[in-house]
Amino acid sequence: MTNFKVGIIGAGPSGLAMLRAFESEQKKGNPIPEIKCYEKQDNWGGMWNYTWRTGVGKYGEPLHGSMYKYLWSNGPKECLEFADYTFTEHFGQPISSYPPREVLFDYIQGRIKKSNARDFIKFNTVARWVDYLEDKQQFRVVFDDLQKNETFEEYFDYLVVGTGHFSTPNMPYFKGIDNFPGAVMHAHDFRGADQFVNQKLLLIGSSYSAEDIGVQCFKHGSDSVTISYRSNPIGTKWPEGIKEKPLVTHLEGNTAFFKDGTTEDFDAVILCTGYQHKFPFLPDNLRLKTKNRLYPDNLYKGVVFNENERLLFLGMQDQYYTFNMFDTQAWFARDYMLGRIQIPEKSLRDLDIQKWMTYEDSTITGPDHVDFQTDYIKDLISYTDYPSFNLDKVADMFKSWLNDKEINILNYRDQVYTSVMDGTQAETHHTPWMKEMDDSLERYLTEEPIDEKELDKVNYY
Amino acid sequence: MTNFKVGIIGAGPSGLAMLRAFESEQKKGNPIPEIKCYEKQDNWGGMWNYTWRTGVGKYGEPLHGSMYKYLWSNGPKECLEFADYTFTEHFGQPISSYPPREVLFDYIQGRIKKSNARDFIKFNTVARWVDYLEDKQQFRVVFDDLQKNETFEEYFDYLVVGTGHFSTPNMPYFKGIDNFPGAVMHAHDFRGADQFVNQKLLLIGSSYSAEDIGVQCFKHGSDSVTISYRSNPIGTKWPEGIKEKPLVTHLEGNTAFFKDGTTEDFDAVILCTGYQHKFPFLPDNLRLKTKNRLYPDNLYKGVVFNENERLLFLGMQDQYYTFNMFDTQAWFARDYMLGRIQIPEKSLRDLDIQKWMTYEDSTITGPDHVDFQTDYIKDLISYTDYPSFNLDKVADMFKSWLNDKEINILNYRDQVYTSVMDGTQAETHHTPWMKEMDDSLERYLTEEPIDEKELDKVNYY
Repeated sequence: MTNFKVGIIGAGPSGLAMLRAFESEQKKGNPIPEIKCYEKQDNWGGMWNYTWRTGVGKYGEPLHGSMYKYLWSNGPKECLEFADYTFTEHFGQPISSYPPREVLFDYIQGRIKKSNARDFIKFNTVARWVDYLEDKQQFRVVFDDLQKNETFEEYFDYLVVGTGHFSTPNMPYFKGIDNFPGAVMHAHDFRGADQFVNQKLLLIGSSYSAEDIGVQCFKHGSDSVTISYRSNPIGTKWPEGIKEKPLVTHLEGNTAFFKDGTTEDFDAVILCTGYQHKFPFLPDNLRLKTKNRLYPDNLYKGVVFNENERLLFLGMQDQYYTFNMFDTQAWFARDYMLGRIQIPEKSLRDLDIQKWMTYEDSTITGPDHVDFQTDYIKDLISYTDYPSFNLDKVADMFKSWLNDKEINILNYRDQVYTSVMDGTQAETHHTPWMKEMDDSLERYLTEEPIDEKELDKVNYY
Repeated sequence: MTNFKVGIIGAGPSGLAMLRAFESEQKKGNPIPEIKCYEKQDNWGGMWNYTWRTGVGKYGEPLHGSMYKYLWSNGPKECLEFADYTFTEHFGQPISSYPPREVLFDYIQGRIKKSNARDFIKFNTVARWVDYLEDKQQFRVVFDDLQKNETFEEYFDYLVVGTGHFSTPNMPYFKGIDNFPGAVMHAHDFRGADQFVNQKLLLIGSSYSAEDIGVQCFKHGSDSVTISYRSNPIGTKWPEGIKEKPLVTHLEGNTAFFKDGTTEDFDAVILCTGYQHKFPFLPDNLRLKTKNRLYPDNLYKGVVFNENERLLFLGMQDQYYTFNMFDTQAWFARDYMLGRIQIPEKSLRDLDIQKWMTYEDSTITGPDHVDFQTDYIKDLISYTDYPSFNLDKVADMFKSWLNDKEINILNYRDQVYTSVMDGTQAETHHTPWMKEMDDSLERYLTEEPIDEKELDKVNYY
């Protein structure tokens, strides 16, 4: 049955995957439900949009984007490739394994531009409030058209939430930070290394943001980068100019005090302290409440909200896999909504969720986590016709990537991998990453390496 | 009749004035309605709270505060004094006319601390969505308890909105600003001059933010301050180190191009481009839609929403008068809700609003605006028992203040005024403002001037 209405909140990689999933069904000549997608930003692409703004957007909404200048993929593109639209199909030529933001954005757009997806999306529109109407078994959603400053209501039989979880900063307080006499910001508001050239930086946190912002600032000329961790250091081999220290206990003026008794003066502090899952538009009984983990509680198959089966979430997991995981989730969501996948009753769903969460609890290392998420996607993909691909080989690439980073955090992006989708071997980029200061698509697709003299080997360690 | 329920959104100066108005009624032995007040922040005081955070708060909500370090009142305290609680009553001694933030915050708290107002306020709670139920003539308000991550509903007969309008940045785009290689922020996220010491600053805007941030950065050691105006310069006599230029046309790298054909390089850009009235929790037919002006449309007596008489707004005007204007509005709102003030039918209210807006349109100069707002308050105060005070004398002080600023923007805060409430003559502060780098309450109430050598006259001009 397709006589129903689906609302999708968010037109980032998850929301676009949902639209694509329905589109592929329609292309087969099958009927699809009525679909509407709403996006807060003025363009699709979610996190892959770049904005110069910080804090709130043009219309005063909390900014979605945590994107910054000079961001290059921090994992091989071969691990995030769509199974139904390869990089080679998009660019018509092999490219390197670690493209910059603009190139990845172009790729995401490429697949969806071939469809009429844009017609389904209403931009500059934020979901303001959701009520679930038990009698009608429908969601009433109040939207706010930011450009018109007008609100309106829509009713949906299914609601798909793809609003991401890397937008709402988690920003703990450190004693004395109120009086730190330099820039203090969360990674969410970091827009590139330029303003930190020649500065001594304190980065608090030990996940991807700290690692990537730290290395970017080192590359672009910060004086020094100190990364402060709570439990465990990132532990890679750092070049001279980047170091790790245990947690900051407090600050006095521009001096930071660390747990190991040392002190150091800084010009700026960047809090790389992660993000919160936040759904201000949902009543709390429809809210996913979880920290960032591989298997959030309360989501059957990582997708169907266990307290209300008509509410679906995409992409709410901590992520090794990204675009292709969102795809497998979207295909699952589609077939579930179309009635092709029957889900068991709640007690059995609870057991299934529990099984996965227990499995996650048994994982310890990076490779364990990769294996876990690989198994999760294998399970999902078994339910639908999403093009199958060699997931074990992708898992191997993830493990190799983890290893590359440990050996040399400055040149792991110069490594190349081979697509499991179409066998394309990536090309070595014309310029070593540490020498490539221009992250534009134009420059990326140019053949010329930069000045040979610039390419003289430098041992950063 | 007092058998009704009032919801107040916001516990800043406006919300607290509303609580105080009811409290003063209760103290007379009169019955008052059931009252609940909700505040997004973890303390009262609204804009007068200081937070080190920028962008969004601890729980991911857009930050209310635009407050920064080293902020001193930019108008004489004698112009904002409560008629029923003087500075002298609070501090027990005369103080200067231009106190720093902490001192003003202490004063605001002083009056309300003497009551049980805190019991009426639920902190860390944001209004998420309002529906007006025609049949019940009530508002259903969904609140979000940020600490518990839980939502709940309340029903009110009257809703008083006191959420301010200096929280949502208005941040226009300038070509090339995306690639400016230094800090770019709105005044809303400015937290003090420290991070701009020795920097060349571009401030865009020509209102209070630009004037005050510019002068603070000059005082605290920025290399230069350039203020770029759209229509008219601030036009005061600037010292060497601060100048005004016409509007930026675009930026290239760190170079700004101005309308007069000149260019200049900068280290940082601060957009002092004002704020938007924003009410995300209200459906658009209950929203006040206005720019920042002395008499916003659609508010009868500047308080009662003309499309729904049970919805009240406090403090939505552009402001010369502040705390005592909010008081007169709150007293009016109280007596209106208590049924003591009858308002005419809509067509007559329209005429009244129109009359005031026409009057506003006829004002041109600063002194004209002061006279307008003085007349507005005189009108309001005539309806209630709010203690009357010599408004003409306050208006004279505002005009004198405007003049002081024009003569010397660096020392106008050293001038002293006399309270119209109790005749107290302000004291000259122990240290000239330009020499006073410490804005703490402790330092402010200390007798000692700073090192005499430091006080040697400097001619900044």
